[in-house]
Amino acid sequence: MKNKRSVVVASGGMDSAVCLALSVKEGYETAAFHLNYRQITEKKEFESFELLTAHYRIKEKIVLSTDALFNIGGSALFRGGTVGKTDYQGILKRDPKDIPPTYVPFRNGIILSLAAAWAEKLGASVIFIGVAAIDFSGYPDCGPKFIKSFSAALSTGTKNGITVEAPLLKLSKQEIVKKGIGLKVPFEMTWSCYKNEDRPCGECESCILRAKGFTLAGERDPLISG
Amino acid sequence: MKNKRSVVVASGGMDSAVCLALSVKEGYETAAFHLNYRQITEKKEFESFELLTAHYRIKEKIVLSTDALFNIGGSALFRGGTVGKTDYQGILKRDPKDIPPTYVPFRNGIILSLAAAWAEKLGASVIFIGVAAIDFSGYPDCGPKFIKSFSAALSTGTKNGITVEAPLLKLSKQEIVKKGIGLKVPFEMTWSCYKNEDRPCGECESCILRAKGFTLAGERDPLISG
Repeated sequence: MKNKRSVVVASGGMDSAVCLALSVKEGYETAAFHLNYRQITEKKEFESFELLTAHYRIKEKIVLSTDALFNIGGSALFRGGTVGKTDYQGILKRDPKDIPPTYVPFRNGIILSLAAAWAEKLGASVIFIGVAAIDFSGYPDCGPKFIKSFSAALSTGTKNGITVEAPLLKLSKQEIVKKGIGLKVPFEMTWSCYKNEDRPCGECESCILRAKGFTLAGERDPLISG
Repeated sequence: MKNKRSVVVASGGMDSAVCLALSVKEGYETAAFHLNYRQITEKKEFESFELLTAHYRIKEKIVLSTDALFNIGGSALFRGGTVGKTDYQGILKRDPKDIPPTYVPFRNGIILSLAAAWAEKLGASVIFIGVAAIDFSGYPDCGPKFIKSFSAALSTGTKNGITVEAPLLKLSKQEIVKKGIGLKVPFEMTWSCYKNEDRPCGECESCILRAKGFTLAGERDPLISG
C-alpha cells in the first residue's frame, strides 16, 4: 500500500469503535475525527471518543465544533430536541420511505467532507466510516449506493484521491457485535443512546438496535447492568 | 418540473452572481446560501451577497459561519494568510498537478454538503454552483468529474434526491462575462479579489482571471476605474 494513513470518523458509538479497531489492525497510521454538531448527547459521545482514542493510542486527532448543522436545523437530534420512543417491531414495520425525525439532513455527507478536508491536510487517502445499512435508522446517507458514489466524488475531487471504506455496511448489528468482540473492542467505552448521557434510555432507535445486536449475538452489553 | 425550488451557492463572486441570475431566469423559487469560513475577504463577500440577494429579491437566504475549515487549515486563503502574486502566464504555465496554496481543502464538497442539508429542509431538489473548469485556479474540487460524481452522491444520499447544476462548468471567463452581461448581472455588486476588501489587488489569481474575462469579452469591469 502506497499510503498507509487513514482518518476514522469516530462519533464514540459502537460502530465507529469497531472501525477504529479495524483501521489500526490493518496497519494504517490512524487519525481520528470527531464532530460536535450540537447533538443531544455530545458530552457523552466526546467522552467516549477520548476514551477510545486513548485506548487505541491514536496520535493524530481532531475535534471540530460547528453550529452550522444546528442552524440549518431539521432534526430532533439537536440539543433541545425530543427523541421519541420506539421498539424493534416499530423499526421493522417502518416504511423505508418514512425517514425518522432523528435524521440530521445530510449529516454523513457533511462529516465525510470535513474529514476529507482534514485527510487532505494530513496526506491520508482513506476515510473509515461506520455506517451500516441493515439494522439502521433508515437515513438516506447510510446506504451502499451513497457510500460508493460519495467515495467516487472524493476520489476525483481531492488531491490525495481519497476513498471511503465502510467495512460494516453490509453487516447486521449482531455481526458488528461479534466482529467487535473478536477484535477486543472495549464496548464499555462506547455510547449509542440518542437521549441520555447517564444511562442508556433503552427506548430510542439507537438503544433498540444496540440491544438487538447484543441479544442476537448472545453477548452481554457492558453498558447494561444486571 | 415537479419541484421548482433551488438553492444557489452564492459567495458574492461573479460566477455565483451569474448562477443566481440563471436560477431566477429559469423560474426556480430561488434560495441563496452563503458560507463564512473565515476567508480573508469575507466582509466584502458578505456585502456582495447581501447586495445581490436584494437585487434578485431572494426571499429565503442563509448565512452560515463556521470555524471548522479554518481549524482544519491547509490554505493561504484563511484570514491571517498571505495570498501571492501571479499573472496570467503564470497560471497558464502551471503544472495541472501543482495545486496553488489558496486551495481550501475540499471546500466545494463541504459547501455543497451544507447547502444540501439546507435544501433537504427547504424541500429544494437542485443546487446551483458557479464552479468553472477552464479559467480556474486548478483546484481538484472544481472539475466536471467531481461535480458529476458529487451530484450522483447527493441524488442517492438525500431524501429530496438533490442534483447539482454547474451551468458555467465548461465556459471560459470571457464567456461567463458575456453570459452575465446578457442576463444584466450587476457585476459592480460582485467581489472576486482574494486579498483586498477596498479595491481589487489586480495581482491574485482571482483578479487575473476576472481581468482576462472582461478584456477578452471586450467589456469594462465596473469595479476597475479608468
